[in-house]
Amino acid sequence: MPEFRKDPIVGRWVIIATERAKRPAVPKLEAANSTPARPCPFCAGNEEETPGEILAYRDPNTKANEPGWRVRVVPNKFPALQVEGDLNKCGEGIYDKMNGIGVHEVIIECPEHQVTIANLPEENFREIFWVYRDRLVDLKKDPRLVYGMLFKNTGSAAGATLEHTHSQLIVTPIVPISVWEEMTGSLEFFNYRGRCIYCDMIRQELSTDTRIVHDTPNFVSFAPFASRFSFETWVLPKHHNSHFENIQKTEVEELAGHFKTILMKLETALDRPAYNYIIHTAPFDTQALPHYHWHIEIIPRLARVAGFEWGTGFYINPIPPEQAACVLRETEVTWR
Amino acid sequence: MPEFRKDPIVGRWVIIATERAKRPAVPKLEAANSTPARPCPFCAGNEEETPGEILAYRDPNTKANEPGWRVRVVPNKFPALQVEGDLNKCGEGIYDKMNGIGVHEVIIECPEHQVTIANLPEENFREIFWVYRDRLVDLKKDPRLVYGMLFKNTGSAAGATLEHTHSQLIVTPIVPISVWEEMTGSLEFFNYRGRCIYCDMIRQELSTDTRIVHDTPNFVSFAPFASRFSFETWVLPKHHNSHFENIQKTEVEELAGHFKTILMKLETALDRPAYNYIIHTAPFDTQALPHYHWHIEIIPRLARVAGFEWGTGFYINPIPPEQAACVLRETEVTWR
Repeated sequence: MPEFRKDPIVGRWVIIATERAKRPAVPKLEAANSTPARPCPFCAGNEEETPGEILAYRDPNTKANEPGWRVRVVPNKFPALQVEGDLNKCGEGIYDKMNGIGVHEVIIECPEHQVTIANLPEENFREIFWVYRDRLVDLKKDPRLVYGMLFKNTGSAAGATLEHTHSQLIVTPIVPISVWEEMTGSLEFFNYRGRCIYCDMIRQELSTDTRIVHDTPNFVSFAPFASRFSFETWVLPKHHNSHFENIQKTEVEELAGHFKTILMKLETALDRPAYNYIIHTAPFDTQALPHYHWHIEIIPRLARVAGFEWGTGFYINPIPPEQAACVLRETEVTWR
Repeated sequence: MPEFRKDPIVGRWVIIATERAKRPAVPKLEAANSTPARPCPFCAGNEEETPGEILAYRDPNTKANEPGWRVRVVPNKFPALQVEGDLNKCGEGIYDKMNGIGVHEVIIECPEHQVTIANLPEENFREIFWVYRDRLVDLKKDPRLVYGMLFKNTGSAAGATLEHTHSQLIVTPIVPISVWEEMTGSLEFFNYRGRCIYCDMIRQELSTDTRIVHDTPNFVSFAPFASRFSFETWVLPKHHNSHFENIQKTEVEELAGHFKTILMKLETALDRPAYNYIIHTAPFDTQALPHYHWHIEIIPRLARVAGFEWGTGFYINPIPPEQAACVLRETEVTWR
């Protein structure tokens, strides 16, 4: 029997329909292509192919926009938003619009041509998380901007157009509607129960154990109860914290290894799928929030999203999260 | 300069970013594959390959589940939902769930192996719309069900797994969250202005003309102001009506030709793209609503939806709707 499950935060219903997994056209895994692009603008030595760097962690005595960097942040060459100008909010009859002010940056995660972040050493993961934090802290100073979204697309099925491993940062003058839904959903729960719903989820998941993928002292990863996508995995800090940029140094160190483990498990179990991950964090213009809890959502792209999902906001997921979590838990990865 | 545009109904912001269209990796068009699947379960003569028919428009003196039909409705062989049973709503700690009760049907739109609906004669379109209506009217009688979503996936990029032209109907015991957002957004506007926001949009679009794609006495098609996707096109009846199933006979006749024209324009201008269309209509358990207006949304799938869109509900559209509408308006199609 298929099952409807409700996401307790935004109220979205998901259909867990194992019957669908028996279809002749099984969701296909699209492996990330590993042919090196020539010349790759993100490889060390090709720094002039990108706009000038905004931030880089580099070896001593190396110069900006030259090799010697380990992680490098540059403006997106084809940005969705522009940083210069005023918002100029205005109407057009019944419609509302404003200028596309904002920031669109690319975080190049390693100097050599690696197509998957999971292969990088733990130290790189630490530096990547520090770069994420540094950019958010810096951009929060611009009073026009209210939200910073850090995300990664791996594989063409997930929307990546360049294969050299990288993530992106889009900073907007409006709180995105999905973030707004998370904020209001978790606030409603907090007003009713006086607790953070994410903290409650962590407690329940750790006590039932069936959806846990990985558990370390300060972080836990699980397949969410109302997983929209097969093998969807959330990574949450165990200590309540609404803003990713307020992460503790010891947490960054642990998260690097925890996150690398999860990505390696996904790549091994699903044979290098295309995937996205997104850091969900509170808006810039908020103080520490008792009801919101930053986290990372990892979404493997095993099947195409079809018309029904678009039209309804219902997702049909053929693999129950309990089964996905079991597969990932039992997938052994070693990297030390 | 990119532009933020707000969808006036659900409040979703879209970024119109023409700069993005200059990227080297241009959104690829995925043509619907035209190799006939062997043996295609939807072709006439293979009726035993599908579950038994629920409804068919057939020639006189032909029998159920045998050739002689023109449009045929069967249960989905791999359904996301099951019709038998009780909802059995219950909790699981902080989570809510219920049985996946509902209906999942397939509408096979022609007996011969056509891969695109646009090639079908106008008469077939009429019958397809009548079948849509008949199924909704019939399923509304089940008190457990509250919403019927009619949609079509064409091309594998749009989620289609069988190429023989068909659409689907999923009927659920819950109002989908996206429908709920349209209902509440349009009700808010109605409470404030006393008018249907869709009627207002039709008036404004017809008076400015820049986003109109096709205009006939009782229907209008336009590229919406806050188009999430390149070449997104909405088809609306000019006379206010919240429920698709209350369509007038003369409207069905006109819609058939109007809709065929739009699909032919899209197929010609975009070289047979993958696309979805979805009929947006009011929930079963509502009377005629003054604030809601049924319509069809057509979404070509020219680019992959990436991490940013998932995480934020913001869409980045590289082609302004004014430009898309102009291309479609000027695309000549003849079929009489």
